[in-house]
Amino acid sequence: MSKYNELYNKIKKEIIGGQLNEGTKLASVRKAAFIYNVSRTTVQNAYFALAADGFIISEPQSGYYVSYRRAKHTEEKQQNACNKILYDFKSGNADKNSFEFDLWRKYMKNALRCDEKLLSYGEPQGEYELREMLSDYIREKRNVISSPNRIVIGAGHQSLLGILCSLIEKRGSVSFPDKSFIQGAALFRDYGFKINYRYKDAEIIYVSPSHMTVLGDVMPNKRRIELVNLSAKNKSLIIEDDYESDFLYNSMPAPSLHALAGGENVVYISSFSNLLLPSIRISFMVLTEELAEKYEKNIYRYNQTAGKTEQLALCQYIRDGHLKMQIRKTRRFYTAKTKQFAFMLAKEFQNAKIDISENALKIIMTVPFAKSTDIFEKNGISVLYENTENNCLKLIFNTSSVPQKDFAGAIQALKSSVR
Amino acid sequence: MSKYNELYNKIKKEIIGGQLNEGTKLASVRKAAFIYNVSRTTVQNAYFALAADGFIISEPQSGYYVSYRRAKHTEEKQQNACNKILYDFKSGNADKNSFEFDLWRKYMKNALRCDEKLLSYGEPQGEYELREMLSDYIREKRNVISSPNRIVIGAGHQSLLGILCSLIEKRGSVSFPDKSFIQGAALFRDYGFKINYRYKDAEIIYVSPSHMTVLGDVMPNKRRIELVNLSAKNKSLIIEDDYESDFLYNSMPAPSLHALAGGENVVYISSFSNLLLPSIRISFMVLTEELAEKYEKNIYRYNQTAGKTEQLALCQYIRDGHLKMQIRKTRRFYTAKTKQFAFMLAKEFQNAKIDISENALKIIMTVPFAKSTDIFEKNGISVLYENTENNCLKLIFNTSSVPQKDFAGAIQALKSSVR
Repeated sequence: MSKYNELYNKIKKEIIGGQLNEGTKLASVRKAAFIYNVSRTTVQNAYFALAADGFIISEPQSGYYVSYRRAKHTEEKQQNACNKILYDFKSGNADKNSFEFDLWRKYMKNALRCDEKLLSYGEPQGEYELREMLSDYIREKRNVISSPNRIVIGAGHQSLLGILCSLIEKRGSVSFPDKSFIQGAALFRDYGFKINYRYKDAEIIYVSPSHMTVLGDVMPNKRRIELVNLSAKNKSLIIEDDYESDFLYNSMPAPSLHALAGGENVVYISSFSNLLLPSIRISFMVLTEELAEKYEKNIYRYNQTAGKTEQLALCQYIRDGHLKMQIRKTRRFYTAKTKQFAFMLAKEFQNAKIDISENALKIIMTVPFAKSTDIFEKNGISVLYENTENNCLKLIFNTSSVPQKDFAGAIQALKSSVR
Repeated sequence: MSKYNELYNKIKKEIIGGQLNEGTKLASVRKAAFIYNVSRTTVQNAYFALAADGFIISEPQSGYYVSYRRAKHTEEKQQNACNKILYDFKSGNADKNSFEFDLWRKYMKNALRCDEKLLSYGEPQGEYELREMLSDYIREKRNVISSPNRIVIGAGHQSLLGILCSLIEKRGSVSFPDKSFIQGAALFRDYGFKINYRYKDAEIIYVSPSHMTVLGDVMPNKRRIELVNLSAKNKSLIIEDDYESDFLYNSMPAPSLHALAGGENVVYISSFSNLLLPSIRISFMVLTEELAEKYEKNIYRYNQTAGKTEQLALCQYIRDGHLKMQIRKTRRFYTAKTKQFAFMLAKEFQNAKIDISENALKIIMTVPFAKSTDIFEKNGISVLYENTENNCLKLIFNTSSVPQKDFAGAIQALKSSVR
């Protein structure tokens, strides 16, 4: 640890521990250098960082003072972060057993051997060979007819939506299925678009047909067709986020809007985060012909965000057929987990109403509840919940990141929280 | 190759080869399925893709027609891409010998072994341990006083500037040092900011002090101080892009604006693309205290774009002292290359004026020239040039991606182009 860091930690500890109270003036830089036997620069750097992190404030022409209110805020935040969550039903992180790490490592190692390719900046649009592979892949899987030239790769949906915003000149109105996709709405708003939640009036309709709400509802075929017809009539643009379309449990696989619309007026967007690993950040979108032309004309404006090594690894991984196997495996694995946990819940909470979402990734349990909801975190459980009428609580469990061996413990912790 | 792809390539070849002329009507889907002995879906898919790539157009209620004008455009583009560039003095790609691949592979392999870490989404702000490391690193190197909480990591400058745009509520005016940073200006414009090139009137001043123009000019200290004072007086925000600050050759290392301003009103932004590999896309920015607070409040809006594996690898690579060594090595290596090529140019073009840029990454050669500049590409040379007065041409060479063993050949190709 650098000297500056040592001093920073020492003073921070004194502030949090209460030895240095609100408003206490710190020693001057000169004096502190003498006291702690370090250089003035070290003291200056430590003071700067303490101020940056909110533990002290600088009064011009006077000196540095302890700012306890802000220190307390920072301390609480740090403590909250330490508050150990044992059963995380919220994050959607992956289960270790859902993914063959050794196989992926093999592909990454192969990609890392492509010295020549790694010496250059990547193609702004994404590596051509991966776009070619994706084009074939979504044609076969979702009947989305595309071509490498119409596919843009990026590190996550947000990067891609940023590009999309820059391609749409008219800053019209955008609708979202519900208020849960905060990031998307905020991005469009920042670019000057107007947000509404009535798709019938919107010039741009953002929709995730396999995940319409936080409960994972799937859009019925009838509504899909209505939506595509409406978009054709109004010449509105559909942005189809195909999130979780690989996870269908109660319902039959539904056609993509892109296929239903014959590729007209639909931008298709998808990713691999919940099929492979959340830390592999590769999303892609299929532009309409018009938007693809515009993108090509303005290509000098864009840089690629997704890592080249991971793009090359993913391409070969798909080419060798592993993605298809991984999809089957992931679906089977997570469906089994959801069912198992739902079964255990039903056994222990006999007065609760328990449902499995259409995509089999979520369990919705409604149960009588009159306590403070803080109890869950206190008992080490992180879970989404909504208050409902009649003093009931609706709990939404995503079991993906909780290993099966922890299910029994989680049920016990839930029992002591709910009863 | 899929059947659809075979058919696509077959028809494309006939269009480019001229067997199918402008306006020729293609066989109907039914007929083509019969002719080529494939399914109708295969034909439909091939036609769709040909239309998407601009080789044919669809006339509703009539059929598909060859669109030769667009096909020609596509063909030319494809041919241009094939036009072999032997000596690339333009791209800024890395030289194989500037980087120890085996060492980097070792760090990537170690990072890929962190199974637990790769199971979760990364921190939106970037991995904490890397932010901590960067905070120490830039303090030591550029006297930029920061803290992990004020650093945001992202895949490239563009992602970070997008976040910055969303944090600045007032869509005021932004100035750039010259017109070469098209991507930045376009991004700010898309977010509703006004662009000008007079920094004195701007509310936001974008500046890259070690790379003021395409020639790599360095901002003198006197102007740095003036700029910082102006920003303090006008309460304008400086965005300091520290691009190429590691490469100084003719001038003394200059202090960062962030340090000169005592961290007030300056957002510092930097990356590792030209120190390590262009394909490692990790940039970072240091926010002001005010912007960092705003970022923290809105953190749910952002996702991380930089890959987690590469972040973890880079962190350990810096921790083990390799970045510092790499900087020294890269600087020495590229300076030597630039000098060597400048020497060779001076020997062969005795009537030319030859200068080395301040950062020793570019050579500027002004030489009498009366031909068409197409000659360079024809002779396999890719180079930036500007016409000057008196029938002279100013050529700007970046030797980074041309191996030293190719220098003699490049000089010969240049001689036959210029003389």
